[in-house]
Amino acid sequence: MLSEFEIIHRFFAPLSAEKPDILLGIGDDAAVLKIEPTHELVVSTDTLIEGVHFFKGADPKHIAYKALASNLSDLAAMGAKPHWFTLALTLPQVEAAWLTGFSQGLKDCANHFEIVLVGGDTTQGPTLVISITVMGTVPQGKAITRSGAKPGDSIFVTGTLGDAGYALQCRREYRPCPRLAAGMSLQTIASAMIDISDGFSADLNHLLEASHVGAMIELARIPLSERLIQALSREEALALALSAGDDYELCFTVPEKNLPKLDCRCMLVGHIEAKSGLRAVELDGQIRDLKIQGFKHFDG
Amino acid sequence: MLSEFEIIHRFFAPLSAEKPDILLGIGDDAAVLKIEPTHELVVSTDTLIEGVHFFKGADPKHIAYKALASNLSDLAAMGAKPHWFTLALTLPQVEAAWLTGFSQGLKDCANHFEIVLVGGDTTQGPTLVISITVMGTVPQGKAITRSGAKPGDSIFVTGTLGDAGYALQCRREYRPCPRLAAGMSLQTIASAMIDISDGFSADLNHLLEASHVGAMIELARIPLSERLIQALSREEALALALSAGDDYELCFTVPEKNLPKLDCRCMLVGHIEAKSGLRAVELDGQIRDLKIQGFKHFDG
Repeated sequence: MLSEFEIIHRFFAPLSAEKPDILLGIGDDAAVLKIEPTHELVVSTDTLIEGVHFFKGADPKHIAYKALASNLSDLAAMGAKPHWFTLALTLPQVEAAWLTGFSQGLKDCANHFEIVLVGGDTTQGPTLVISITVMGTVPQGKAITRSGAKPGDSIFVTGTLGDAGYALQCRREYRPCPRLAAGMSLQTIASAMIDISDGFSADLNHLLEASHVGAMIELARIPLSERLIQALSREEALALALSAGDDYELCFTVPEKNLPKLDCRCMLVGHIEAKSGLRAVELDGQIRDLKIQGFKHFDG
Repeated sequence: MLSEFEIIHRFFAPLSAEKPDILLGIGDDAAVLKIEPTHELVVSTDTLIEGVHFFKGADPKHIAYKALASNLSDLAAMGAKPHWFTLALTLPQVEAAWLTGFSQGLKDCANHFEIVLVGGDTTQGPTLVISITVMGTVPQGKAITRSGAKPGDSIFVTGTLGDAGYALQCRREYRPCPRLAAGMSLQTIASAMIDISDGFSADLNHLLEASHVGAMIELARIPLSERLIQALSREEALALALSAGDDYELCFTVPEKNLPKLDCRCMLVGHIEAKSGLRAVELDGQIRDLKIQGFKHFDG
């Protein structure tokens, strides 16, 4: 059986790389990293658990890609540029084929977004648990928080919604694409931003609460993919788009004065209002309070 | 039942704090942190799993303290000053009493070492898993790696060895004390350093391999606590001191020219030699190869 050192050497050390900002990578007690003096550090941690976030027996390549991509989405939501990540992996058993797939998925995502593994911990335990911490940077004072939305700001989303939820219904794999380029392009444009991981209505609601504002959404403007429109009724598709998790698109607000500078693919879906709560112009033209539903991390 | 948001609000948000280097803490998509331009970022991740690193039913206060302290030990081993940490917590069930104890243990350790929780993720899963990422800083170029030991350097350890191993035998709790002050005091003095988490002989061996050197240890010099000496035979105590994990003392090497500057409580235990391998002057005066035994993360 492979030891922890062999696992690191064979599967994870190849994910390390020489980069001028990595002064010390995998293999010591800790990594030593260089931050530009003009930049701030941005850090996020997320965990994926077998049977909770993915099916038992799911393709390890896909699990790894999703684990890293969903973490990167949090950095995208700050307008940050990602640089490094650490991996804490708990494995029920050591299977070379599984580890080959897992490390390949991690490599695909890391290479695509140009980030490097700088440390981690691999341990044997009863359940497969993947915790990733991603680190990136943002120019001083340019991080986009959830709390800056103001009445009158326009609300946008970066892509179609509900696709991840539909893939889950079909037990089909869905490869999220963290909107890092869009996030960075919004550093001086967006007033507030969040990524859609728990579901559009739940995540927009987090943004509204943090900003102490409300919003009016137009359901006719919620972007839906061709696939969703063809497979489902309009109501079913919208229900997924509003409440299913794992889309990893960005939802952000833009003050009117910055609208001409907006330069990323996105759809206007509504406006911020002073009155708290989330309301929607429904397909029948009626305005109703929008029921906020999203992924719950603990069952009640 | 408590939701994830209630858990964070009630148990973990109090671990957050205002600090000038925390531009954005818990509650957004990611934390935003400020690094002094004269310093480098030092990062380490570690996981503790129920049934692997601690007994099922162990005191949650103790588990939390140990989880954070063992992570901090990795920063101590780099000579770094810790600032922040993130917590990825997987819980089988949500019990307020357990969470109260856990967050108290975390707070005790965080307050003692003046570090602040800046983010995390709490999820429900079949097994209790705690992954912590600690972040700190070190002045540019001053991180102490495992790879700088040279023949002739003296080898030191910061405290007594084997105590954690003995506590484990007795199923007694052991509260590790990461040697952060000692680590920082060694920034311009030690040529190489590692923390003793897998066992003295195993960890010293990691340092020797990284530095491409060997060592001669004098077993008579291995520091043993009064408790260990009184409870066990000399041979039993030494066996624990050499191979039991979780001590979280530092093992470091110092070139002769820096010996007068050495200013932390530590014991000289041997010397670095050019010839690879780990040898020991045993209690009978004979020199023998030291069998390297340590905690294995995966059972063969």
